[in-house]
Order: sequence, then C-alpha cells, then structure tokens
Amino acid sequence: MKALVFHGAKDIRYEDVETPSPKNGEVLVKVEAVSICGSDLAGYKGGNTMRVAPLIMGHEFAGVVAGLGEGVTTAKLGDKVGVYTNLFCGYCPACKAGLTNVCENRRIIGTTMPGGAYDGAMAEYLVAPVGKLLPLSGKRSFSEYALAEPLSTGLRAVRLAGDVKGKTVAVIGCGPIGLLTIMVLKHAGAKIIAAMDVVDKRLTMAMQCGATHTINSKDDVPAFTRQLTDGAGMDIVFDCVGAQATINLGADIVRLGGKVIWVGLAQPKIEFEFKHAAVKELTFQSVYLYITEMEEGLDLIESGDIDVKQIITSEYPMSEGPRIFAELASGNSDEIKVILKNE
Amino acid sequence: MKALVFHGAKDIRYEDVETPSPKNGEVLVKVEAVSICGSDLAGYKGGNTMRVAPLIMGHEFAGVVAGLGEGVTTAKLGDKVGVYTNLFCGYCPACKAGLTNVCENRRIIGTTMPGGAYDGAMAEYLVAPVGKLLPLSGKRSFSEYALAEPLSTGLRAVRLAGDVKGKTVAVIGCGPIGLLTIMVLKHAGAKIIAAMDVVDKRLTMAMQCGATHTINSKDDVPAFTRQLTDGAGMDIVFDCVGAQATINLGADIVRLGGKVIWVGLAQPKIEFEFKHAAVKELTFQSVYLYITEMEEGLDLIESGDIDVKQIITSEYPMSEGPRIFAELASGNSDEIKVILKNE
Repeated sequence: MKALVFHGAKDIRYEDVETPSPKNGEVLVKVEAVSICGSDLAGYKGGNTMRVAPLIMGHEFAGVVAGLGEGVTTAKLGDKVGVYTNLFCGYCPACKAGLTNVCENRRIIGTTMPGGAYDGAMAEYLVAPVGKLLPLSGKRSFSEYALAEPLSTGLRAVRLAGDVKGKTVAVIGCGPIGLLTIMVLKHAGAKIIAAMDVVDKRLTMAMQCGATHTINSKDDVPAFTRQLTDGAGMDIVFDCVGAQATINLGADIVRLGGKVIWVGLAQPKIEFEFKHAAVKELTFQSVYLYITEMEEGLDLIESGDIDVKQIITSEYPMSEGPRIFAELASGNSDEIKVILKNE
Repeated sequence: MKALVFHGAKDIRYEDVETPSPKNGEVLVKVEAVSICGSDLAGYKGGNTMRVAPLIMGHEFAGVVAGLGEGVTTAKLGDKVGVYTNLFCGYCPACKAGLTNVCENRRIIGTTMPGGAYDGAMAEYLVAPVGKLLPLSGKRSFSEYALAEPLSTGLRAVRLAGDVKGKTVAVIGCGPIGLLTIMVLKHAGAKIIAAMDVVDKRLTMAMQCGATHTINSKDDVPAFTRQLTDGAGMDIVFDCVGAQATINLGADIVRLGGKVIWVGLAQPKIEFEFKHAAVKELTFQSVYLYITEMEEGLDLIESGDIDVKQIITSEYPMSEGPRIFAELASGNSDEIKVILKNE
C-alpha cells in the first residue's frame, strides 16, 4: 500500500510499504480521511519524543472496515468507523482509577509512546483492535468524522472547567483546538466567549465558530477583558497555546478565585509569575487526551449540534502530504485544518 | 502604650506610641498573645510590599476587650476575643461572589495592603471593628487562640483539596503552616501523610503532629513516594513552601490526574516544568487567607480536636521583640512558633 512515512526531521515520504494484516481481534481499516494535527506537525519538525522515525503518523481519522482478523464478530466489511485511538493497558494505577487518558503504558495510534509505537492513518490502511471501533452512520462526511478526536480535547477541557453556563470565558489561541473549544463553549451556554489570537483571520473564524468578542493578542488584552467584565476578569480562561506568554496572560486576565484550563502545550518549560497565581486563589487544570469525550464528540457531529466542517480549510490527496507538511511547517500558511484523503 | 514598631528593613523598635482610640463601632483590644508569622519575618527582612514602614505588625493574636467605641452593644469590657483580621470591603466583585478572602480593597490587621495600612497586635493595644470579634471561652491559653489564624490557612488548603479521607497526601515544608496542615489532614482522615523538609528536627515534629512518614527533602523524594504508593504517586500534594524546587517537586510526586495545593509563596517568579504538569492532567490550586476557616479553627482549638500548642516553641515578652526578630532572620534558629506577650 501507499503511506506517508516519517523518516526524520522534515522528511516525510509518500512511498510503498507492506499492507498490515489484522491479527486476532483486529480489523483492517481503509482510511477515508485523516487530518493533520499540530502534534504531527511538531513531530515533522523534529525533536518530538512522541514521533520517532520510522513512523506512519495520523490519529485523527475515519474509514471503512476492509479486512477482519480471526475471532472478529462485532464488525463486518464495509462498516463505516471511527477509531478510539488511545490503546490503554487497563491495569496500571491510572487505568484502575478510571483515568485511562493518562495510562502509563498507553500506545496511541499514529504515535511513539513509552508503551510502544503504533502506525497511524496517513496511509491507505491501518489495523485497529475491533473493540476500539466507533460506528458511524455515514450521514456526515469522513472528513468531519475525522475531527471527533480533536473535538474530544475541547469537550474534555470544558468538562474539566465545570459548569460554564452563563459564565464569562476567554479562549487564548484560535487554532483548531481553540476553535473547537469555542464551539463546545457556545453549545454549553457560556455567556461571553472572548477569543484571542495574533492572527486576525483566525479571529474572524472564531466569531463564525461562536465567539462573542475577539481581540488580537498584540493589543491590551487585560484592559479588554476588564472592560468586558465590569472590572472583575474572566471566570474561566482556556489556554489553547500553552506558552510562557499565554500561561502568564491567563493568570492575569482570570478573575480572583477563577479557573485557568491548560489545554495546549507549546513550551515544555516556562518562567511562571507564581505570585500572581498564588495571591488570586486560582485553579489551574491541565487537560490530556480524552476518556469518554471521543464518543461524545462523534455524537455531536452526527447530530449536527456541532459543525466541525467550519474549520476544514483544505482537502488534499495523501500523495501531496510531503508538500503540505513542508508548507505548514514554513509558518507561512493560512490553513486551519487540512484533511488528507486516499485517491 | 508600648509597641514593636517596624521602621524599615531589619529595624524593629520597642517604643512608646500613642494608644489608639476606638471609634464608632470599634473596640480597643488588649493584646494577650501575638504570634510571629513568616510573613512578618519577610516584612522585617525588607522589600515585602505587605509591610511598609512605619507599621505595627501582628495578625495572629488574641486578647481582651479593654475599651468600647460609640454605639458598641455586642461586646463588653473583659470579653476574651479573637479577631477576624480580614477587613474586606463587601462590595467588590470578589466580595459579591463570596470570595472575601481575595477582596480587592481588603485591609488586613497588621499589614500594608492596597486598601490601606492597619496597625496590628505587636503592641499593648489595637483597635478592631466590633463585628470582627470572635468570642473565646477562655478554656485554652491566649497563645493557642492566637494560632487560629495560621490554622485557618491549613483548613482552607485542605478544604480546597476536596475529600482527603483515605487519600495519600504529601506535605512539603514543615514550618508552622505545614505542621498545622498535617494536623488538619490527620483530623480529616488522610491515610498516608508523608512530610518533607530539609530540617530533620521539623520532621520529628511532623510525626508528633500526625505525619505517618517523613523524608528529608535532600534525599530521593520521588523514589520514596513511589514506594509509599505502589508506584502511583501521591493523590494530593500540599506545597507549604512555594519555591521553584518545591513547585516542580510537587508536580513530579503527585499521581497522574492528582492535585497539587499551593499553600506557600516563597518565590514570586519560578521556572516551571510545564510539560510535566500538562501531560499528567493535574489540578493546581492556590490558597489565599480564609473565609469561614478562622471561626472553624477556633472551634477546633476550643474543642481540643486540634492541639496547636505542639508547635509553640517559645514565649517571650514583647519587649524582646527586636532581639527575637533578629535571631529568626539570621536563619540559625530552631524555633517553629514564637509567641510574644505583654508584661
């Protein structure tokens, strides 16, 4: 089969590889749509411990069952499916506590984890355990279904924030995760959704996705949020970037006793204005992967309650992957979400 | 009257000042015992924005009503009283949200705040609004009652941690706040209370206060906590220091999906291992002052459920204040809690 194989920093090749064979309890999935995640791009740039070459990336995808391993009775050829990409172990302390998202031995489809590498969906086919399949009705496009995985991050972020109904919230960073978080916040009934980004085009898209106000992050964000909230500050801030500047901005613009949800992870080590955080009696909550949120995301896509296709800016043939990755990595791209499809 | 007046960095003088007069709605309180807080010591060393000279410090105290201002009907001469030291405004957004502890206009007895300076209890007398008095039975010593204020910090830290019953917890830093937090955790039913400090004497005291295990922070703390918890890490970590090393240690030794409670504030700006925090899906909660916890602390002292006198290492006449401050500031002191009393 053809696949986009990651061979090392800035080296992804569209080439022939052996088609995988589903083993006992596994199915072969023909990939219909796979989306490029920011983490795939970070992997492409090199130095990301979760993308070690050689690897076929791709964990945001949907497809059709095209082969059955031994003992598989709950799936049949032609089934349209999403795949729950977190292959948790089920027996570590985190799994036993119900926190399968941070399973110590987890493998994640399309990544390299301490638990092992697992080839992903930037290929014609991949294999997946039958128990991880999520049935799709087919009334939405495969490209939309592929976005259930990043949508699950927005859903988990909002869940961990507690009740957002009637609250004033800020979303820092309007890339795919920020925009999906805005959609979830709108659906959950947040009163004010203030979106922030350095790119004006993304702010326009944020308004389309449900933001009530926007400001370019280069402007005076603290003054803007004070004005929006009669001087109090935002009830909840979603940091969908996770860099030094945004983390300290979040603690600044959140109200006394408020919450900051750390969704993004752009910088591993930062200089943190700890005093600011300490004297305001704040809650900081980091968000990692999903538990039940991927199924919930698919339900919201199926029902039409959340329209993820708004953030899809391009669809390309898989064969153009090497060019697309290079363009996205250049930093000169206006793309939000790019979908790759097999010819 | 005599008072310990803070005149600037390392300059506290025991001298004559005018005895304050209670105004409308205020009472004069004769100070029976006042405890030196770490924040007083930080103020003494200089550069602390909450202690601007000239100021009479002292916010951990108890005394007797010795004078009544006009219109006071709910207190009488001779009443034994604690004082709720947070003079919140009641009308800012934080107060209206019930978060009087972070009131934007608050004054705190014995400190200099943006809302104003207020002379404290390191004197023969101070004035206090009658509505802030907390009645004392007299069956405990004034020195014990004086510790209701720092005890309230431990109570609020444990409250913000949620249910601790049956949990594995760590307390980093066994100064007064750490030790009081340990007492509260024992009373609340924590299963494992692992205490950490660089000073072995403090670890001995931690065991007396209710810790189940101790380790010197210079040793391999992560290995120790893994061993205590079958490899999982601590459910909740209370950082009663708030320095770069302890903040990063907390995120390291807490279990996946666990909570870190930031109680102390030793360093205003730190280099933070953000990635560590982000991928473990952690909650960080800072703690500031108290709301109802000071009354609850007095109740626990009155009932004997918490024995705060364990941490009182010395009692001195107020006149020796200048010498005591200098000794504590030298860093060569074994004291935990020092109480000053008027002759």
